[in-house]
Amino acid sequence: MLKAAKEIQGALGEDAVSLDDDDLESHSYSEASTSNTPTRPVAVIMPSSTEQVSLIAKICTKYRVPMIPFGAGSSVEGHFSAPYSGFSIDLSRMDNIIAIHDEDMDVVVQPGVNWVNLNDTLKPTGLFLPLDPSPTAHIGGMVATNCSGTNAMRYGTMKDWVVNLTVVLADGTVIKTRRRPRKTSAGYNLNGLFTGSEGTLGIITEVTLKLAIVPSHFGVATTAFPSVAAATTAATSMIRGGVALAALELMDDVQMRVINQTGGTGGKMWAEKPTLFIKFSGSERAVEDSIAAAKEIALAHDGSSFVASLDEKTMTALWSARKQALWAILSVRPEGTQIWSTDVAVPLSNLADIVEKSKSDASKLGLFSTVLGHVGDGNFHQAVMYNPDIPEQVEGVKKCVDTMVVRALEMDGTVSGEHGIGLGKKHCLEKELGPVTIDVMRTLKRSLDPHWLLNPGKILDA
Amino acid sequence: MLKAAKEIQGALGEDAVSLDDDDLESHSYSEASTSNTPTRPVAVIMPSSTEQVSLIAKICTKYRVPMIPFGAGSSVEGHFSAPYSGFSIDLSRMDNIIAIHDEDMDVVVQPGVNWVNLNDTLKPTGLFLPLDPSPTAHIGGMVATNCSGTNAMRYGTMKDWVVNLTVVLADGTVIKTRRRPRKTSAGYNLNGLFTGSEGTLGIITEVTLKLAIVPSHFGVATTAFPSVAAATTAATSMIRGGVALAALELMDDVQMRVINQTGGTGGKMWAEKPTLFIKFSGSERAVEDSIAAAKEIALAHDGSSFVASLDEKTMTALWSARKQALWAILSVRPEGTQIWSTDVAVPLSNLADIVEKSKSDASKLGLFSTVLGHVGDGNFHQAVMYNPDIPEQVEGVKKCVDTMVVRALEMDGTVSGEHGIGLGKKHCLEKELGPVTIDVMRTLKRSLDPHWLLNPGKILDA
Repeated sequence: MLKAAKEIQGALGEDAVSLDDDDLESHSYSEASTSNTPTRPVAVIMPSSTEQVSLIAKICTKYRVPMIPFGAGSSVEGHFSAPYSGFSIDLSRMDNIIAIHDEDMDVVVQPGVNWVNLNDTLKPTGLFLPLDPSPTAHIGGMVATNCSGTNAMRYGTMKDWVVNLTVVLADGTVIKTRRRPRKTSAGYNLNGLFTGSEGTLGIITEVTLKLAIVPSHFGVATTAFPSVAAATTAATSMIRGGVALAALELMDDVQMRVINQTGGTGGKMWAEKPTLFIKFSGSERAVEDSIAAAKEIALAHDGSSFVASLDEKTMTALWSARKQALWAILSVRPEGTQIWSTDVAVPLSNLADIVEKSKSDASKLGLFSTVLGHVGDGNFHQAVMYNPDIPEQVEGVKKCVDTMVVRALEMDGTVSGEHGIGLGKKHCLEKELGPVTIDVMRTLKRSLDPHWLLNPGKILDA
Repeated sequence: MLKAAKEIQGALGEDAVSLDDDDLESHSYSEASTSNTPTRPVAVIMPSSTEQVSLIAKICTKYRVPMIPFGAGSSVEGHFSAPYSGFSIDLSRMDNIIAIHDEDMDVVVQPGVNWVNLNDTLKPTGLFLPLDPSPTAHIGGMVATNCSGTNAMRYGTMKDWVVNLTVVLADGTVIKTRRRPRKTSAGYNLNGLFTGSEGTLGIITEVTLKLAIVPSHFGVATTAFPSVAAATTAATSMIRGGVALAALELMDDVQMRVINQTGGTGGKMWAEKPTLFIKFSGSERAVEDSIAAAKEIALAHDGSSFVASLDEKTMTALWSARKQALWAILSVRPEGTQIWSTDVAVPLSNLADIVEKSKSDASKLGLFSTVLGHVGDGNFHQAVMYNPDIPEQVEGVKKCVDTMVVRALEMDGTVSGEHGIGLGKKHCLEKELGPVTIDVMRTLKRSLDPHWLLNPGKILDA
C-alpha cells in the first residue's frame, strides 16, 4: 500500500497525499456514526480532477488497494470507515461549480461542492437544489447515499435530480452516464444504479443536477397533539386528503421537551407534546388554501396550538425548532454519553404503530430517546442516548435498534429510509431483501469491480 | 426450439403455447413500429404465474432459446420483434390487480394489467397512476420501457412510481427488488435498473406502484402562436416562471390543420397555428392563479385565442384535439403510406431551435410531417408520412430522422425521450453515450444474462 501511495504521490504531487495520523483518523472515524472500525486507511489522497481520480484507481487496481471515497464525512452508517484499510479518496478539492444552465434549469458541479453554498450561488437565478441533508454534506456524498431530508416528501430524493454522472470505475475507466436532457429513455438507467451505491461501484467525479424553481410563496404551520398516534394519523390524513404539502415533520414529546430545555426557540417555549411541523409552498392563495385544509384535519384529530404564517420571520422562528432538533439533543446529553441515531421507513398506514412501539421499547430499556419523523415518507429517526462505557446500555441500544428494524420489516418496510446501509446495516439488508436479491446485487458489484476494491465491506460482502 | 416449446407445453398445458402463424406475426410485427424484422418467434408462450415464467426461463436457458417479453404490443421501436427468433413470452394472462393499499397509496399488480382499467378500478379511492402512454399499454411494458406521456412533466416517468418489482432472471431465478416503503436507501436501486431495461435484464412478473391523489380541481387552456418558436419560447417561459403546470403540450400548424381536416373537435374548428395545450391542477384558486399567470406569459409571446376553463365538459372538448392527434394523422394519410413516429429530447433552451429545424428538414425533403411536443420535458415527436414502396421516400424519412437525432446529440440531448431504444435506435444510443459507457451497460447485461437470451438484439449487442 505504501508503494502505491508513493506512486500516487509521485504523479499527483507531494500535497495530494497525507499520511498524517489526524487525517487518517478524521477520514475513517466519526462520533456521529453508529459503526466505526478500529482499522484506519494508510493514506488520504486528495485528487483535483477526474483524470487524477482515474490515475489513482489504476494504481490502486495494480496494487489491489481498497479505495474509500470520502465527501464531507457526514454519513452515519460507517460509509467511510476503512475495515480493510486502503486509501481514503477525499474529493473535497474538487469543489467547482462548472456551469449553471439557467434556462435549462440544471447545474454541473464537482463532487466536493457543498449544497448550501450551491444554493447560495444559485439564489439570483431563482432556482435551487431541493434536497436538504446535513448542511455540511457535499454533492458527491449526497449522490452516493441517495440523500433526502425534509423536502423529500415533495421533491423526492437525490436520484430524482441527477441528470448525468461522470464516474471513475475501479480500474480507472471514466464513463459519463448520460448527456443533458431532463428526460430520457435511452439505455440502462446508470444514474439510478450509481446513485445510492455508496461508493461501492464507482467514484463520482462530476454531476449534472436538475434544479427546481423557488416557489413564490411559502407557509409554515405547527400544531401539537395528545399522542404520537394522533399526530401521525393527522399527518397521514393530510397526505391522503390531497393537501398540497411541501414538508411534513413530526417531533415527539421528548424532543419538544429537549427544545424547551435548551431555551426554546427565539423566546418561544413549546407545548411538550408530539408536534407536527408543516411547510407549504405555491401561489399565495394556494398556500392559504392548503393551510386551511391542514388546520381542519389537525383539529379533527385533537390538534391544538395550531399556528400558521406566511411571514418569513415567523416561519423561520416556527421552523427553527425542527432545525435545531439534532443540535438540541447533542447539547443536553450528559457527558460520556453518545447518540445512536438510526432510521427506518414503513408503508404509511403502519407509521403510527411503529413509532409508538419504538418509543415504548426504548423507555422499557430505561434509555432516553427522541423521535423525529419525515412522516410524509413513512420515515422516522429514533435517537437513543447511551453510555458506551456501560455494557448494559450498549446492549440495550443495540436491542432497541434491532427490534425497530425487525418490526419495520414485519410491516413490509425498509431498514433504512435515508441513511443507507454502509457498514452498520449490512446484516439488516440481508434480512430485508433475502439472499437471492442480495446475490443479484453482488453479481452487479462483481461485474463492475471484480477485485472488490471500491469501498469494500459496505452494503454487502463478497 | 420446438423441443423446448414441447417441454413448456407439457408443463404449462396445451393452451399456454401457440404456434399459430397469426399469433407469431402479431407478436413480432407492428405497423406502428419504426423497426421490424422478417424473422418471427417460433412460439408464443402465455404463462399465468411467476412460477410459470420461471419455469419457461429455466427451459429456455437449458435449450438456449431467446425470450422476448410481450405486453400490449404498443411500443414503436421494435421492442418485441424477434431478430433471433425464440419465444414471445406474452404476459397478458397475468392481469390481476393483486392488492389495493388505499391508506398506503400503493397498488400491487400483475404485468398484464392495462393502466386505463387500473385507473377505472381505483376511481372510488381517489387515487390514480399518473402515467398516460398509449391507452392500450400494460403495466409490465410501461415499466420495461420506463414510459411517460403528457403527465410526465408534473409526475415524472414510470421509474418514479415503482415501489418494487418481482423479476424472473434469464436462468429462472425469481427476485423481489424491494419491500413496500415509499422511500428507501437500502442497497442498490434495482427498480431503477430493471425499469427501462426493455426486457433485456429480466421478465417483470409483479409490480408494486405508488399512486397519486386525484387533484380536487383541474383546468385546461389552449392558445395559438404565430410560430413554433414563439409557442416553445412561451412554454419554456411558463416553466421557468414557476407557473404550476400539470401538462404542457405543443401541436404544430400542420397537426392543427389535420385536426380540422378530420372535422375539428366537437364542432370546434381550430386556428391552424402552433398551439399550446396546457393542463393545471390543484385547489380551485391555485388553478385560477396558474391560468392567469400562463395567460400573461402567452400574451407576452404573441399568443392569441387564449381559452381556459375549469368546467369538465369544456376541458374535455379543448383537450380532445390533443388526444385525437395520432388518430387524426392516421386517418388523413393517403392509402399505402406509413407513419414514422420518433422522439428526441433536448435541454429546454434548445427546444424551439430543434423543432423548427426538424420541420424545415422534412419539408425540404418533400415529406408531410407533424410535430407534437411534450415541451415541458424538452421532448417532442415528429411523425413523418412516407410510402414504403417509394425508395426515395424511405431514404428521405431515414435521413430526416438521422438528422434529428444527430442534432439532438449536438444539443446535448438524447436520442429517445420516451420511446426507448429497442431495435430501431441501437446505433443512435452508441452515438449518444459512446462505446465506453455502452460497454458498462454490456457488462451489466452479461452479468445477469450470460447467454444473452433475454430480448437479444435490443438496446445493445453482445
